[in-house]
Amino acid sequence: MALVVQKYGGTSLADAERIRAVAEHVARSTRDGAQVVVVVSAMGKTTDDLIRLAAEVSSSPPPREYDMLVSVGERVSASLLCMALADFGVPAASFTGSQAGIITTTEHTRARIIEVRGDRLRDAMAEGKVPVVAGFQGVSTDREVTTMGRGASDTTAVALAAALGASMCEIYTDVTGVFSADPRVVPTARRLPRISFEEMLEIAATGGRVLMLRSVEFARRYRVQLHVRSSFTWEPGTVVTEEGPDMEQAVVTAVTHDTSEAKVTVSGVPDRPGVAARLFRALADRSINVDMIVQNISSHGTTDISFTLPRLDLATAVEVCRGLSGELGASGVSADDAIARVSVIGAGMKSHPGVTASMFETLASEGINIEMISTSTIRISCVVAEQDVERAVRALHGAFELEAPGR
Amino acid sequence: MALVVQKYGGTSLADAERIRAVAEHVARSTRDGAQVVVVVSAMGKTTDDLIRLAAEVSSSPPPREYDMLVSVGERVSASLLCMALADFGVPAASFTGSQAGIITTTEHTRARIIEVRGDRLRDAMAEGKVPVVAGFQGVSTDREVTTMGRGASDTTAVALAAALGASMCEIYTDVTGVFSADPRVVPTARRLPRISFEEMLEIAATGGRVLMLRSVEFARRYRVQLHVRSSFTWEPGTVVTEEGPDMEQAVVTAVTHDTSEAKVTVSGVPDRPGVAARLFRALADRSINVDMIVQNISSHGTTDISFTLPRLDLATAVEVCRGLSGELGASGVSADDAIARVSVIGAGMKSHPGVTASMFETLASEGINIEMISTSTIRISCVVAEQDVERAVRALHGAFELEAPGR
Repeated sequence: MALVVQKYGGTSLADAERIRAVAEHVARSTRDGAQVVVVVSAMGKTTDDLIRLAAEVSSSPPPREYDMLVSVGERVSASLLCMALADFGVPAASFTGSQAGIITTTEHTRARIIEVRGDRLRDAMAEGKVPVVAGFQGVSTDREVTTMGRGASDTTAVALAAALGASMCEIYTDVTGVFSADPRVVPTARRLPRISFEEMLEIAATGGRVLMLRSVEFARRYRVQLHVRSSFTWEPGTVVTEEGPDMEQAVVTAVTHDTSEAKVTVSGVPDRPGVAARLFRALADRSINVDMIVQNISSHGTTDISFTLPRLDLATAVEVCRGLSGELGASGVSADDAIARVSVIGAGMKSHPGVTASMFETLASEGINIEMISTSTIRISCVVAEQDVERAVRALHGAFELEAPGR
Repeated sequence: MALVVQKYGGTSLADAERIRAVAEHVARSTRDGAQVVVVVSAMGKTTDDLIRLAAEVSSSPPPREYDMLVSVGERVSASLLCMALADFGVPAASFTGSQAGIITTTEHTRARIIEVRGDRLRDAMAEGKVPVVAGFQGVSTDREVTTMGRGASDTTAVALAAALGASMCEIYTDVTGVFSADPRVVPTARRLPRISFEEMLEIAATGGRVLMLRSVEFARRYRVQLHVRSSFTWEPGTVVTEEGPDMEQAVVTAVTHDTSEAKVTVSGVPDRPGVAARLFRALADRSINVDMIVQNISSHGTTDISFTLPRLDLATAVEVCRGLSGELGASGVSADDAIARVSVIGAGMKSHPGVTASMFETLASEGINIEMISTSTIRISCVVAEQDVERAVRALHGAFELEAPGR
């Protein structure tokens, strides 16, 4: 019997009616002959409400207690889904992360999975039950309840799929799959029936919000096929799988964009060894995750260093840079929070030179200035002014003919 | 160092402000030199909300899942209280019933405590921490999460106090203690500074809603002193303890009343062996908890049997009785849901005859008819018409001079 892990997110379980709809689908999958293991997120805004409560009682909640608190949301949805399943005649049993044998590191609020035991899940399946596992959480090697960061229920699902040898890990959400661009920006964007892990990683890293980066990395490492699909329409969505010889490689698969970052430029920095190291060590010490970094070629012995980072960290980063500019001998620090990143992604890019040139030509013909550039083997990203980004996405989506079917 | 268990109910933890007030009191107790172990109920109406959700997703929620669901309320308040304690500089750690080593029977929703291990609580105390335990729940011998019925957090507190050898179990609630009568009915009712377990048992069983009967039975069996007090005023409340030679025995300690019951009379029953047994077995088979039973003396070979029961079960009980009346040879079945029970309770009653007579005289002088009577060594209860009950309570409270200080 094929084993399938089905993961349902918060919007899929937002209220009693949605929970019953999910139970009906699990019942259908079971009738169709699959052994289903379910992973659930917390209902709707439950976790946000718990975090707000924590902030009301304490200025700095201890991480152990924070994890005890926020892990209840998934437990509530797991038990409610089991009740609904019982109503549809499907025997089911809910399990906390701890009961499911999800063993993690001891770092509260951002624990990582070390091992998935799953003995109780196997026992439940042997008794003919559907195990429903609370996502996002585990138990540490110190026997404490841990959580793994926002969105980590996807990671729970992939880890269980790997440990239990599932043929597929279905990620149910409120969109029908992964698209060639954000359909709110590009109405002609097309659902991608099948993409590679590498492409999905790049999409997740550059603004596609459908899957968390970490769960895709996990899926790639353990070769767990993902199927991203809708719990509202139940239609087939996007399969994320290994790039195989049977997989026709589009040159460009998707155009993504991200408006959550800001840019800092430190100018007139003496062009000598150690300057960049000093700067980025200081930023790392303040826990700032720098994304793109560009250093211009030297002219007259000085250079400019620009980098992007989350907008939330901009004030801190500027403070760090200004504090260091004397020591570094820089002539100035400037900041811009009205930037955006537009990226084109495609596994076929590796064997098709010229994509970069096409991208730059398209942006130029739209009169859009490129402020920074960064590339990987299957991705090209450009930083542009925020006001230009939607126009850039539409132009690139058209230029690479992504609306056309036939992939 | 004296070990004190402090239990806080739902109204004591209703919101962030109340949780912080509780944390401040725990901090104060700790500074005063006590080792405190805290037991918490769910915040305000949390458990009711969860039960409502369960009813929305399922017509008959499986008990295992029901327990998984409703046990989260206490876990939320335990972790929030620990956060607030950290803010007041008190190191604390929350524990689920399972983590606290509260081992129960396997009967979901009404499990009983078999054993309290408490190893992790002792470890936490050895590390200088205040353990905060989620009440109402445990882990069964089958390793499943169990709950022990509404109000069972009091039982958790008493069980922990017994297992850890606490000198006192403080039950914090929204009233300032146990009163000589319900202060809403008798404005001159007095807080009782000290009563015996036996009196508290009778008060809890006859309408005093301050403590759950089961927790008082547990406290008596394990000789755990209780202190019922307010988490709003923090003033000394009522100590419930063993009846000792130092304890001055009032003849009557309190007057209680209860309007949650109804009465059924099966009349004209042939007075022969087995009739009552047949009737009450049939009621027990429908899970109806019969309270008082009165059988009149026989006249002309027949008798009347009256009993009281929860009003919620009245329709079922009447159906059972009517169904049996042919078989029993009864002449009729009548029901009355407008009754109430008034009781006088006092440990000194044992050595003071005449309390019964005084009670009947008092009710007679008020023109209140007595429909049924039941007694124990330290209690007399009368069933009266519901409309008369508050007048009965006030008259008895006055007649036994309970408003006078000096106990």
